[in-house]
Order: sequence, then structure tokens, then C-alpha cells
Amino acid sequence: MTERIGYYKDLVVSAEEAAKHVNHGDRVGISGFTGAGYPKALPAAIAEKAKAAHAKGEEFTIDLFSGASTAPDCDGVLAEAKAIRFRSPYNSDPLLRNQFNDGTALYQDIHLSHSGQQVEEGFYGDFQVAIIEAVRITEDGNIVPSSAVGNNLEYIDAAEKIIIEVNEWQSLNLEGMHDIYKLEKLPNRQPIPITKPGDRVGTTFIELPKEKVVAVVETNAPDRNAAFKAPDEVSEKIAANFIEFLEGEVAAGRLAYDGFIMQSGVGNVPNAVMAGLLDSKFENIQAYTEVIQDGMVDLIDAGKMTVASATSFALSPEYADRMNEKADKYRESIILRPQQISNHPEVIRRVGLISSNGMIEADIYGNINSTNVGGSRIMNGTGGSGDFTRNGYITTFVSPSVAKDGAISAIVPFVSHTDHTEHDTMVIITEYGVADLRGLAPRERAEKVIAVAHPDYRPLLQEYFERAQANKFQHTPHDLKTAFDFQVNFAEKGDMRG
Amino acid sequence: MTERIGYYKDLVVSAEEAAKHVNHGDRVGISGFTGAGYPKALPAAIAEKAKAAHAKGEEFTIDLFSGASTAPDCDGVLAEAKAIRFRSPYNSDPLLRNQFNDGTALYQDIHLSHSGQQVEEGFYGDFQVAIIEAVRITEDGNIVPSSAVGNNLEYIDAAEKIIIEVNEWQSLNLEGMHDIYKLEKLPNRQPIPITKPGDRVGTTFIELPKEKVVAVVETNAPDRNAAFKAPDEVSEKIAANFIEFLEGEVAAGRLAYDGFIMQSGVGNVPNAVMAGLLDSKFENIQAYTEVIQDGMVDLIDAGKMTVASATSFALSPEYADRMNEKADKYRESIILRPQQISNHPEVIRRVGLISSNGMIEADIYGNINSTNVGGSRIMNGTGGSGDFTRNGYITTFVSPSVAKDGAISAIVPFVSHTDHTEHDTMVIITEYGVADLRGLAPRERAEKVIAVAHPDYRPLLQEYFERAQANKFQHTPHDLKTAFDFQVNFAEKGDMRG
Repeated sequence: MTERIGYYKDLVVSAEEAAKHVNHGDRVGISGFTGAGYPKALPAAIAEKAKAAHAKGEEFTIDLFSGASTAPDCDGVLAEAKAIRFRSPYNSDPLLRNQFNDGTALYQDIHLSHSGQQVEEGFYGDFQVAIIEAVRITEDGNIVPSSAVGNNLEYIDAAEKIIIEVNEWQSLNLEGMHDIYKLEKLPNRQPIPITKPGDRVGTTFIELPKEKVVAVVETNAPDRNAAFKAPDEVSEKIAANFIEFLEGEVAAGRLAYDGFIMQSGVGNVPNAVMAGLLDSKFENIQAYTEVIQDGMVDLIDAGKMTVASATSFALSPEYADRMNEKADKYRESIILRPQQISNHPEVIRRVGLISSNGMIEADIYGNINSTNVGGSRIMNGTGGSGDFTRNGYITTFVSPSVAKDGAISAIVPFVSHTDHTEHDTMVIITEYGVADLRGLAPRERAEKVIAVAHPDYRPLLQEYFERAQANKFQHTPHDLKTAFDFQVNFAEKGDMRG
Repeated sequence: MTERIGYYKDLVVSAEEAAKHVNHGDRVGISGFTGAGYPKALPAAIAEKAKAAHAKGEEFTIDLFSGASTAPDCDGVLAEAKAIRFRSPYNSDPLLRNQFNDGTALYQDIHLSHSGQQVEEGFYGDFQVAIIEAVRITEDGNIVPSSAVGNNLEYIDAAEKIIIEVNEWQSLNLEGMHDIYKLEKLPNRQPIPITKPGDRVGTTFIELPKEKVVAVVETNAPDRNAAFKAPDEVSEKIAANFIEFLEGEVAAGRLAYDGFIMQSGVGNVPNAVMAGLLDSKFENIQAYTEVIQDGMVDLIDAGKMTVASATSFALSPEYADRMNEKADKYRESIILRPQQISNHPEVIRRVGLISSNGMIEADIYGNINSTNVGGSRIMNGTGGSGDFTRNGYITTFVSPSVAKDGAISAIVPFVSHTDHTEHDTMVIITEYGVADLRGLAPRERAEKVIAVAHPDYRPLLQEYFERAQANKFQHTPHDLKTAFDFQVNFAEKGDMRG
């Protein structure tokens, strides 16, 4: 394996040894985004260190910063060891999430395009350690990152010490897929010279400040690759509605069958949408998005997608194997960028993409809750949904109309948490249709949104809307005393219908 | 006055004659932003036409689009004639606001940087008429816009017919102050080549499609120039807290006394902040903002501000006269841009500005309501506050801690409408201090926010926060049954304290 290391070969140590550089109270920035490219060995070693300290009655926690979500062998083992005091900017680990919700760990959930900049600007204070997964170390002591770029640049810059994990599981052929473009620091920023998703404007490696590298650890472990569920009837119907909406845009002269640019959240519904696009009239599709998913790989294989720009992968085990085997082919059409670039408002607004993201609930006026069930219980986080929704050409939210066998409606009178405001939401799509809210005032929007709710909930929503309109003010009619009845019913009786 | 018109002299008609081009059901795009640069004669003529139609039992309403707010002789006369069916993207006229709130007119309140793009993309359908105020018509049949640029380019492009109002009240020396840069249409957009607030990248006039010009109307009427209140004790304390915050940023190495870039909302508190800057250590201040206010003119006169970029003026009568007298001097340091550029996320994020906007209420976690009192009653609109808050380097909201003699608290348990989410709000400033929320998780933020509430309300907010924490989920603790008690108390008893 030394052919992957070379330059720092004298710094190769065990994970346990490398973990000595991580101390209680440290701010630690790691690679990793949607379960790809996170460090595989150090987290367990830090967790062991925390457990040993706790066994002796000593404190040991870190503040952990990443690109986005990692995996059980990263956030999971650290949470299990109660080694995380504070986490940002995104998490999907169930154990750690429980700690946010029971109050034993803190979480700052922010837009993924903002996190790196706020680290650079010193809003969090100093960073002690950066732990970055790499495919290999170059002859000059730089690194080829692995299956995610995330906030690697910002953590490498901010940290006093750098630990590199070189992961043999990652294909050497990922080299050439990355496009590492570094924003100038304020006040010297220049325009980002990307005008099309396929533009390459940077290097294929990350330059390292060599004097800060303190350890290199060898690993051989897969990313967290979870299988997607096969599309069910509901997600297929949503996908069909989404594609019908796109075709309506073509008919209206606002979109072409050739070359449209998509962004897509991660999950089963988005994957169903991509499966739908496979059989659609759309050609030469481009993605300017956060994450490369199975569905995009299928679109590339079928010749329907010409380029996909993102910051990481979220692939099933089968597709991850395929990526590792054929990375030399996929790097012709896939680009992995730093997340400040993949999610940058400047580029998103310039290219003019159509965004599509999931949600927890939408209210009748189009406000969206992406994060907190019942207003208090964090699920994952807002991620990049705000970056894309705020700056996209057409922005959509897609969701099944109900969850938990109908006990939860995705459409409610008043969202219990707002991640996207009524000013930003253009289109809401469920299996019951498309609520196109563009150009409409609040009361007009309410009618459209109620129409795509589950039929069980439409009368309840209509009842609320009428009660609200019986009050005095009619711009955004509400009845604040009963606005949260759906959520209160669910908390008390396990069903939003009461 | 013909020296201002020339090219279209054969098209000069009365306002009444020009208004014949405006019909029931039309979409009409007008110039005007914060009471500057709106058409002065056509609105009254259209209102007369509407009244005459209504007297005959005929329908007559238009859908009206502007840059932002206009004035009593524009939105006001049209509202009085019940001539507006739908309005976007911003309004501050009290008569028209009443119609939104009593349900007789519709209002779509959207980010000011988004409105022009959505017109271009056809989200509203066709536009029949554009009515644009100009300082003069050039020899080639183009126009020099007046005291606001707003969405002029987009309405001129979209409309079938163009009516020009040439206003002799506006100084001919405004020519040279404008910087008209037009974004390419999707999918051919290029980077906006502005890297500093003072960069000029366009023309000093707006090119007109001459065949669409159907009428020219001569006017001689002032902009709506309202006097600002002299700073009172509360606004002076807020301003002092704001400047102390800035000095803390200098001490922390995140800001320099030389050359910082500000954005500021409009109003008495912002003007007090600018008065405070006049006596501060800050030098060579730049503004990349929406609106030029009295306070900025003072900073320019005092040699403290080197450049101010905006899309319009909001000046008191005294300052408006000064501007008209010395426009040839002010145009050296003031630039007026189209609002897609003054408010563009690309430029805002690139220059790295510190934003400062007012609010109606903030909740304990930092969500901000800028628009709807009690969740339903629209005041003005979100304006550009989202454009700047979402993309600024440091983003602040400033507000007195109470309104209506203490009956309303600016800090509440749960905002009744969300215009800026917890993910975006960095700093909240009242006369009681600075709540710096950067890098904090929700429960940590609540303590900071409650600390800047009015002392009368702190115990009530603390009580809510404790009740919320007695519930099960601790990420963003809430008690949905009592979350809106403040607003319900105010609606029922006229006091948030109940």
C-alpha cells in the first residue's frame, strides 16, 4: 500500500497513535459527506480515548465539524462513546440524533454552503485537528481526496494539525474526478468562473500545508453505502407528477427537452424521479447538485445525462462497487467539487437549475419544515436544500402526502418549524398532484396546496382555512389558537387527525 | 422642457391620453423603489379611468408590479380607486395594505432580487404596459432613469407597450450616476463582473426598444420624501450597541476600521446607526445596499463613506433637494444599479458585507418575522432583507425591544410568520444589548436572545423556555400549545403580557 503514501511515509502510524493528537475540548474538522469520504479509523480510536477518560471520571468531548453526514463507524461510534459535545453542519446518525433530542449533545444545523465560510471567518474559534480521507498522497505531499470533497479545504486551512487517512478501498481512478477550486478570502473574492455544470476550473488534488501534517493512517474500509428502496407506487406517482410538471414547462416555453439542469435531494423519491427521467423525452440532462446517487449513474450509463457535478456520492453497495471499478470512465462525466462551490448561490443562480428536495411538512401557504418534527425533534438537517431552493430557477419540494400509515400529513395548517419560507417555495408535488405556487398570493396558494394533500386531510385543512378567514386579517389568514392542532394531536394521540 | 425629450417629441401626450393604453386586466410594470422614481402622472389617470368604469358598473383592475414601494400619488390613488387586483413585489402604501388585509386585493411578497427574474422567466404571464420615469430621453431614443432603477429593464423587456414619464423635478445631473448592467438570459449567464461596491460595469442609460414606445408624458413632481424622525434615546442606544459590536469584530480580527462594507434597511434605527458611524473610528466605509438614505449622504459629506451602491434613494425633503442641487458631485460616489444587481446573491456574497435590517419580531431561537403582524396582517414586505441576510458576511437584525408602549415585545416564544430562518440569523440587537448567535445551537441561542428582550418580557420568555424544556424533545424545545400565547394575548387583550 505504500505506493499510495510515499511523501509522508515516516508519519504512518496506527489510528490509536494518531488519536493522541486529539484532545478533550478540541474542534475537529473531518472529511465526509452523505456517508462518503469520511475517516474510517480515527473516529473509533477517538471514541476509545473518550471511553477511557470517562472510565477514569475525566471529561472528554470534541466539537465535530464535517462536510455533511457520515456513518455508524464515524458519528455513530463517537456518539456511542458520548464523545461529541457539539456537531455541525449536518447529521443523520440515529444515535447522535437521539443525543440532540435528549439534550445531551448540541447541534448547529446550517446551510451547507455557509459552514465552510463561517469556519474560515473564525465564527467558531480555532480548530485543533483536521482528519481527511484521501485516495492517495501525491509525490509532492498533496492529497487526492476520496469520494467526497465537502469542507476539506476549510478544515485543512483552519486546523493546527492534519491527520490523513489513506483508504485503499477507494479507487485510485477517482483521481481526475475532483475539481478543487479555492475561493479567495474576503475581501479579495473574484467571480467563480463556472458557467456550466461541466466546467473544470481547479486542480485534481488538494494542496496541503505540509508542516501541519502530523500523522498518516492506512485504512481499507467501504463508505456507508445503503441500498435505496425499490420505487413503490406512491414514489412512482410522485415521479410521474414531477415529470408531467417538467413537460408542462416545456409546453410553456420555459424549458427545453434538451439540456436541462437538475438538482436533487437524496432519497427514494428522488431516485424514482431519476428512474422516471430514464424513460422520458428529456435528453442531455445535466446535474449541478450535492450528491451523486444511483439514479444519476443510471442516467449517465443510458446516455441521458451528460455531466453530473456534486461534492460527494451516496451510492448503494452495488453502485459503489461499480464506481470503484469504472471510475476511470465515470470521471469523464462526474465532477466532485468543494461544497462551497457545489452549493454556492453564485453558481446555482447562474446556471439556472430546477431543484427538487424532500420535506417533513409544508403549510397551506407554502412554508416548508425540513428538519424538526413537531417543531422540536430534529431529524437530519436543512443540508443544502436552502442553497438550492433559494437560488434555483424553479424550485420544487416532493413528498408523499402522508407518513406513518396516514397518521401524519405532509400538509399542515402551520409548519412547526420553518426552513424555507413562503417567499422561496415555488412548487409542491405529492402523489396527488402539483401545486404550482409561482406568482400567487397567499390565499391563492392555500387552495393549490390543500388540493395536493391526502384526501383524508383535505376537509380538515379546508376547515382550518375557513376558520382562519373568519378572523380579521386576510393577507395570510391564520387562527393562531388552532394553528398547531395537527401537531398537538399527533404528539398526544399519535394521529394528526386527532 | 422639450430639451429633455427630443427623440419621441411626436409622442408627447397628456397623462389621460397615455392612460388609454392601459386596460382592465393588464399586467403593468412600473419604475419606482422606496418612493423614488415612480411615475407621477399615469397612476392618477389610470385611477380616473377605473373610477369611470366602476361608475358604469364595469370591471377595471390591473396587476401592478414595481421595483418596491411607491407613494400616495401612485399606489395610493390606485388603491383609492380600487384599481389594483394584484400587487408585487413590495408595498408600503397604507391604503393598499388595508386592501390586502381586508381581502379585497392580493399581494405576492417576494425577495426583491427574485422579482425581475421571475418576470423575465414568464412566471406571471405577459405584460401589457411598462411605465417608466426618466430624467431625460437621449438623442438616440434611450432613457436616463431617474432616482430609482428597480426592475425597469425587466418591465421594458416584458411589456408590449412602453410609456415614459419625463420628470423635470429630477436633476439632469443624475445622468452618470446610474450603472445599467443587464444579466444575460438563462442559460447564457456569465459572472457579474463586480468585485467592489464602486465597480461600474454598465451604461449610464437604459436602451429602449423604440418600436414599443407609445407615449411620453411630461411631469414635474417630487418623489415621496418623508422626513426621518430625529434619533430618540432607544434608537441611539441600539446604534451604540451596533457600533460596539462592530468594534468587537475589529478586536477579534474579523473586521478592519478601514473600508468595511455595509448594507442597511430603511428607517429611523438605521439612520441612527449611520449617525453613530459618523463619530466612530470607522473610515472609508462603503455601502452595497438597496437604498441611499440621509445618513449615507452625511457619511459621504463627512468623508467617512467613499462609495454607496444602491438601486434608489429614500431621502427626506431637505436631502432630496440637496441631491438635486449637487447630483454632479454625488454621482462621483453614488451608483444606482438595477435591483437584480444591487440585491444579487452573487455580488452580496462576494463583497462580504455586514447587513442590518429591522424586524417585527424574533423568536427565542432566532427566526425572524419581517412582514406579518400576528401571522396574518401584512405590514410592508420582506423586501431585500432576505437577499442581504442570506448572503451577507455578518447579518444583523436591529429593533427596539418593545412597541406600542410595551404592549408588543419584539422577542416572542415562536414567530407567527417566518421570513428569515434560524439558519440565517447571526446577530440580534436591541437597546438592551447584542445577541450574537453565531456558531450556537438552538438552546444556547435562546439564552442570548432572551437576554436582549425588554426586562418586562424576560421572565415570561424564560417561563416559556423552561416549559418547553419540560417536554420530550430538546433540540429546539417548544410547547406548541402555548407557543403563540404572546400573539393571542395581543389580539384578544391588546397586550402580549395578557
